[in-house]
Amino acid sequence: MNVGFIGLGRMGKGMARCILEGEHDLAVYDVVREATAEFATAGARVASSVAEVCKESDVVITMLVEDATVLDVALGAGGMRDSLPPGAIHLAMGTYGVGTIRTLADAHAKAKQTLVAAPVLGRPDLAASGQLGIVAAGPIDGLRRCRPLFEVIGRRTFEAGEKPEAATAIKLANNLVLGAAIVAQGEAFSLVRKYGVAPQVLYDVMTDGLFAGAPAYKGYGKTMVDETYDKVGSPVLVGIKDANLILAAADLARVPLPMLDIYRERLLGAIAHGDGDKDQAVLAREQARACGLE
Amino acid sequence: MNVGFIGLGRMGKGMARCILEGEHDLAVYDVVREATAEFATAGARVASSVAEVCKESDVVITMLVEDATVLDVALGAGGMRDSLPPGAIHLAMGTYGVGTIRTLADAHAKAKQTLVAAPVLGRPDLAASGQLGIVAAGPIDGLRRCRPLFEVIGRRTFEAGEKPEAATAIKLANNLVLGAAIVAQGEAFSLVRKYGVAPQVLYDVMTDGLFAGAPAYKGYGKTMVDETYDKVGSPVLVGIKDANLILAAADLARVPLPMLDIYRERLLGAIAHGDGDKDQAVLAREQARACGLE
Amino acid sequence: MNVGFIGLGRMGKGMARCILEGEHDLAVYDVVREATAEFATAGARVASSVAEVCKESDVVITMLVEDATVLDVALGAGGMRDSLPPGAIHLAMGTYGVGTIRTLADAHAKAKQTLVAAPVLGRPDLAASGQLGIVAAGPIDGLRRCRPLFEVIGRRTFEAGEKPEAATAIKLANNLVLGAAIVAQGEAFSLVRKYGVAPQVLYDVMTDGLFAGAPAYKGYGKTMVDETYDKVGSPVLVGIKDANLILAAADLARVPLPMLDIYRERLLGAIAHGDGDKDQAVLAREQARACGLE
Amino acid sequence: MNVGFIGLGRMGKGMARCILEGEHDLAVYDVVREATAEFATAGARVASSVAEVCKESDVVITMLVEDATVLDVALGAGGMRDSLPPGAIHLAMGTYGVGTIRTLADAHAKAKQTLVAAPVLGRPDLAASGQLGIVAAGPIDGLRRCRPLFEVIGRRTFEAGEKPEAATAIKLANNLVLGAAIVAQGEAFSLVRKYGVAPQVLYDVMTDGLFAGAPAYKGYGKTMVDETYDKVGSPVLVGIKDANLILAAADLARVPLPMLDIYRERLLGAIAHGDGDKDQAVLAREQARACGLE
Repeated sequence: MNVGFIGLGRMGKGMARCILEGEHDLAVYDVVREATAEFATAGARVASSVAEVCKESDVVITMLVEDATVLDVALGAGGMRDSLPPGAIHLAMGTYGVGTIRTLADAHAKAKQTLVAAPVLGRPDLAASGQLGIVAAGPIDGLRRCRPLFEVIGRRTFEAGEKPEAATAIKLANNLVLGAAIVAQGEAFSLVRKYGVAPQVLYDVMTDGLFAGAPAYKGYGKTMVDETYDKVGSPVLVGIKDANLILAAADLARVPLPMLDIYRERLLGAIAHGDGDKDQAVLAREQARACGLE
Repeated sequence: MNVGFIGLGRMGKGMARCILEGEHDLAVYDVVREATAEFATAGARVASSVAEVCKESDVVITMLVEDATVLDVALGAGGMRDSLPPGAIHLAMGTYGVGTIRTLADAHAKAKQTLVAAPVLGRPDLAASGQLGIVAAGPIDGLRRCRPLFEVIGRRTFEAGEKPEAATAIKLANNLVLGAAIVAQGEAFSLVRKYGVAPQVLYDVMTDGLFAGAPAYKGYGKTMVDETYDKVGSPVLVGIKDANLILAAADLARVPLPMLDIYRERLLGAIAHGDGDKDQAVLAREQARACGLE
Repeated sequence: MNVGFIGLGRMGKGMARCILEGEHDLAVYDVVREATAEFATAGARVASSVAEVCKESDVVITMLVEDATVLDVALGAGGMRDSLPPGAIHLAMGTYGVGTIRTLADAHAKAKQTLVAAPVLGRPDLAASGQLGIVAAGPIDGLRRCRPLFEVIGRRTFEAGEKPEAATAIKLANNLVLGAAIVAQGEAFSLVRKYGVAPQVLYDVMTDGLFAGAPAYKGYGKTMVDETYDKVGSPVLVGIKDANLILAAADLARVPLPMLDIYRERLLGAIAHGDGDKDQAVLAREQARACGLE
Repeated sequence: MNVGFIGLGRMGKGMARCILEGEHDLAVYDVVREATAEFATAGARVASSVAEVCKESDVVITMLVEDATVLDVALGAGGMRDSLPPGAIHLAMGTYGVGTIRTLADAHAKAKQTLVAAPVLGRPDLAASGQLGIVAAGPIDGLRRCRPLFEVIGRRTFEAGEKPEAATAIKLANNLVLGAAIVAQGEAFSLVRKYGVAPQVLYDVMTDGLFAGAPAYKGYGKTMVDETYDKVGSPVLVGIKDANLILAAADLARVPLPMLDIYRERLLGAIAHGDGDKDQAVLAREQARACGLE
């Protein structure tokens, strides 16, 4: 398969590597030229424009951070819509908003192209080792054709139906559950601290019982216990971006989500207090502030 | 050790059994006479009053559901305070409010007795097999003397310091985190359903990744997917009781807990809609109602 | 009419005066002896016990701050239940919880006495001038017999039916609306301050338009603009007491009240930050803290 | 003064009339041609394009509903930026988002034009009678030049400083306080209904005391009592539009606003339940649903 890849950031780099090692023909593009160097060495074709990546590809993957960027790359003059051959697939693997996915799906459909949305679960280390989770949705034939790529990029694929936005909804819903778990742990630590309890004891209880094994507790909880908010996995400023995507998806679908509101407000508070660059576990400190512990 | 046990309900029965099998001398009491029959057969002494259980015991365990009941059993006329020998221990293993624990601790201290609070984690099956988690707090010497009992009742003990109420705070904080996880899953399922996603797919994503392994997701999430709210693990009406204990603890310690509020409100809504006897996973239906899905 | 009055605090003093001036025979009682002195001079009979006040009265008014106090005065040994003649009325004019009102109503009914609940609206200055609002509920005949007293105590009476707790519910509901108005103003001031607006301008807009004339905005808003939180009308610690009464009433009736939750949390936060004795307008400062403005 | 007016909807029509009666030279434009007919008769010049309105005007007022519309009218090809003479003023009197106001202010400044933001307070009847409230902000000289217009359009002008977005912030903050008042009344009515109270009694209490005189209670409260949600002042779908503008303003300024969240969620719920076209007082029904009363 001829595969194009746009967006060689921390996540994209690892994913593109996996594709190359999967013995697909790969063309890569990134606005940051240096990002492509290692791929030239490794046997990929380095394109000098979006159009060039698209021209002869069966599938072009985008792995870009911002909705505005993917919209521009896809729909701007000389972008993917203008350059992908009829029948080709835009495989959008970043986490974009439902509105963006709808816009892309419509635009590609009009150009006889196919949008498959397949946001990923996992951080750069999993991307590098081909161990990501993938949530994929799009037209049946499109999904079928993308499967060989999912196999080299990911550990497991969750297929979510024919509408690309369904994959987005799942990714966002999963993030919502995570956000709530972070805030709830923060509340719990505040409560026990007020009763003179060492946070480590609550951590031991949580991770031994109902929440045993779950990275969402093992990881964020530990950071809260150690207050090592400067070791950043996912920063507050990324959290608020995701929270706003969830909010927009909920708004479109008319779904009241009170837990999301609490998560968003704590994120805003953290940013207002200068903690925007800290790990999201810092929401525990935001909670502590609210009850006079900081 | 001479051990007394008051409250042979679904949890207490299993715990008392473990003590008996641990080769301690056991005296049991329950207002429901039938509950004691099997213990007579098994070699325990069946007492006919609280006072009789207490008279010659080193440690008397209470495993009663309501705060009002334990207060009456402990502080009523002829109760534990009046009957326990000086130096004996009241080991309170139910989940009671912080206020109740404070009252008990003070009253026993005045009577030269010791209160150890040790609420347990786990359901009747774990109680029967001696696999409960135990969160214990109280005076150092009291804790030390209770350890042999913890060893036969539980799988692991988490010690939380010298103030009995600290154990309560931890148990309640853990419940708070659970409540938030239940509500958050309900929100997540509503969101994806509005986008036409089969709930099972979100469940697969959640339990494969960030929340893998955790009973709080594996169990409640599955019940939400299958909508088998009539198979009740922990009912809504127990949830609201616990939520109100958390609320009272937070009130005493001046801790705002917005996630708790959401959890409480959803519980109240479920009761108002006639779902009080259903499993707490039914909060997903409450959420679905809020967004017009039911 | 022979009237008894128990509780000559800041509110009760003014109310009792109005009754005396209304040419009723008045017996007064207060645990603080000094509080009764002025009434002796003014022609009231000063009783030395609750029982003595009750013995020959047709109606005995209680105006006590705490639920525990009114329960003790009414139901304790030698209290109102034991001392009021059959057919006499306990007219409870403090703001008590629904549970307390139910307990009192049942107990008096069993003793062939009548409970009328009639919480008042307004502060000590209005009490002194007989200008209070009165929300009254109780058996029809009881209400009828109390009307002459309402006429001298209040400016206007709102009758709410035959169940005393209905009056309580209305008083609490009105307080809930007030609490929300206070918090909302705090949020609004925070928002405009972040945009560089002088709070006074927002105050002018609010009190000129949609909220013109309403004391809830004119008063609390002004205190927020001037930040004169030390001039205390209604302190935070009274606010939390009322909020908890509303919460309990909502819990009994299974009514989720998210706005109440926000109000309560802000009150708790204010207390945690040391502002418990300040005027409730200080919730604006609590809000400002939450967004990094303090 | 030569004045242009774009947007002759229910509000704009009345405002433009006032300007004409104020003896200014008026040119009008609306995409709906019929809307201009009455103005031709009354002596205004009817322009056939945005550009034509702008060409010879000192001040051009826009009174358009959507942010997207005002952005297009102002910044689209042949729009206000391209057509207003240097030194002329774009007086934006609709309620637009902070982001939109910033964009307009920057664009006009670059074109040597001035943006004054002056959102209005009041409904079409007040617009027709020149009795609106006006919140105005912008460069000092711009404000000064607009004052003669404010005098004929409004009853009172609140000046909020030199940054146009400050006026927006005030308008939005005022709406936030209103939204909270609506929701709080809904909660209060639910609470008392559960206690068997006729809503009218609570209404009488509210509008007699703390909230006396305020249209926000007199109007919305009455609609709730009568459940006349089909007589629409401000519909839910306008409410959610405004709530989202407030949310965006709070997001930009990093201000957590929990009351706004409750208001938004109730609006979303109402839309999900099919009440989007009803008056916002219908949030009381949404609240009633949440507690099993509907």
